[in-house]
Amino acid sequence: MARRTITDTDGAIYEFTPALEAVTTVESGAALTIETRDSLDGAIQDESDVLESVPEEVNAATGPIALEGAAPGDVLRVEIEEIRLAGDRGRVITIDGFGLLDGHEDIVAPRTRMTPVDGDSLAFGDLEVPVDPVIGTIGVAPAAESYTTLVPHDHGGNLDTTDVTAGNTIYFPVFQDGAMLAMGDCKAAMADGEMCGTGAEIATEIDVTVDVIDDPAVGLERPLVETPEAWKSIASAETLEAACELANQDALDLLMAEHEFDATDAYLFSSLVGGLEISQVVDPLVTVRNAVPKEYLTDPF
Amino acid sequence: MARRTITDTDGAIYEFTPALEAVTTVESGAALTIETRDSLDGAIQDESDVLESVPEEVNAATGPIALEGAAPGDVLRVEIEEIRLAGDRGRVITIDGFGLLDGHEDIVAPRTRMTPVDGDSLAFGDLEVPVDPVIGTIGVAPAAESYTTLVPHDHGGNLDTTDVTAGNTIYFPVFQDGAMLAMGDCKAAMADGEMCGTGAEIATEIDVTVDVIDDPAVGLERPLVETPEAWKSIASAETLEAACELANQDALDLLMAEHEFDATDAYLFSSLVGGLEISQVVDPLVTVRNAVPKEYLTDPF
Repeated sequence: MARRTITDTDGAIYEFTPALEAVTTVESGAALTIETRDSLDGAIQDESDVLESVPEEVNAATGPIALEGAAPGDVLRVEIEEIRLAGDRGRVITIDGFGLLDGHEDIVAPRTRMTPVDGDSLAFGDLEVPVDPVIGTIGVAPAAESYTTLVPHDHGGNLDTTDVTAGNTIYFPVFQDGAMLAMGDCKAAMADGEMCGTGAEIATEIDVTVDVIDDPAVGLERPLVETPEAWKSIASAETLEAACELANQDALDLLMAEHEFDATDAYLFSSLVGGLEISQVVDPLVTVRNAVPKEYLTDPF
Repeated sequence: MARRTITDTDGAIYEFTPALEAVTTVESGAALTIETRDSLDGAIQDESDVLESVPEEVNAATGPIALEGAAPGDVLRVEIEEIRLAGDRGRVITIDGFGLLDGHEDIVAPRTRMTPVDGDSLAFGDLEVPVDPVIGTIGVAPAAESYTTLVPHDHGGNLDTTDVTAGNTIYFPVFQDGAMLAMGDCKAAMADGEMCGTGAEIATEIDVTVDVIDDPAVGLERPLVETPEAWKSIASAETLEAACELANQDALDLLMAEHEFDATDAYLFSSLVGGLEISQVVDPLVTVRNAVPKEYLTDPF
């Protein structure tokens, strides 16, 4: 089956809504290449380009793509095979009103630094940063509310999670017929936390294989990412503490589905292995994950 | 120079105060073995032993140990060479009023699970957890306030940080003459986050080498840990968000000391490499760290 290409000129959204219209429909098992533009729609091309405020539309997500047969209660599996940079430089910026240290007196906003791509590295001034691309925004049509592509929530969206990278697989609950997958907002590199509010923002081509898991053994309420070493629940909330509670509860559900644990034993066990990780601390909701090593969890679906 | 042993019967504290009295004085460069009792002072010996509330005294820290010549403004370097378990089982517990999911209806508190040690593993029911000891509480005499050993702050204390382990080195600001190092509250294994409020609590023998860094090139306001891969600032605060701000600012100070960065460029760069990590989300103040890979930071002192 040939790999199909879907570009941002086919369609791109700035809001995940319950009633998205698909730009195309693909069968479960389809191999796709998804082209994404940079999160700032090309507005920043050199260091003299700065953003005075967060634009009304950011993080254009290519799609949405309908999955044939996907229905509420299913799980959408997105295997991320490769992320190729489609630009020769990233950009990392401060914007007034945004970022972990926003308002600190020694932090200048707006500022833009370009990070030229040189083979497997980015240049930040004299320093080299390994290229390690991340998909910042990826999700499906939500259950009831709408969320701009600046917001992460149970449908995914602006998760800004370094584990959403090539070699890993991300799973979403399906809330609407067709699931309605869309993605964009890629970074050539990003720290856990995304402290200034961006990574090295860049256009990409993403190879994925998408599958619908009918009647999953374990249902999902929120995204889940699989790395070679671990299963990681992903949760977003108003505070990091609230996100930690959700991510831990999701991890307990997985542990209880596999082991003879009640919730309390799962909780005690979860305090011994893997643990809580920070995805991002800068978006309108913040995001954490709870890693459980694969020694203790097989594929839950 | 012979390795000296200091035991919890020589002395142990439940509070880090500015005016601690040393149980012994050692020279800079001393090799020490420090014996620690379990964080619950032996109160939990089997699964029928439970704690109805957090005891007034927990996390006994063996010491304090004065370092000859250490003076305010210096840095205390503690190289952690080995942590040997001194008990045949750990204990992981819930206590009413404590822990990330405290008050959730499916979480039973109090409950105790014993984790017998079997070679390089702990048993949690049928599951094996690798032994990977962590020093939960380690610190020095604080600048002005006093902190019980349940609290983490700028002096260290109850940091509950998985990187405080054998093979790594932790650095503290010296606030008082002699520094006054004390440590205890070890775990045979612990997840990042320490969600239920404990790891597998156990007595240990810890081999360390301690050094006073006079007139450091970079001063410290808070603890810093060095792993084989990274330098990680460690910060504790009322909320995870506030702790992230402090840890990130400390990382920027290190980056600025080494590179031709102003604070804003250091902030932008910090958003591309390493990143924010969760230490613990359950103590009276919560703790995070900001990792910067060693490619970008040499020894700052």
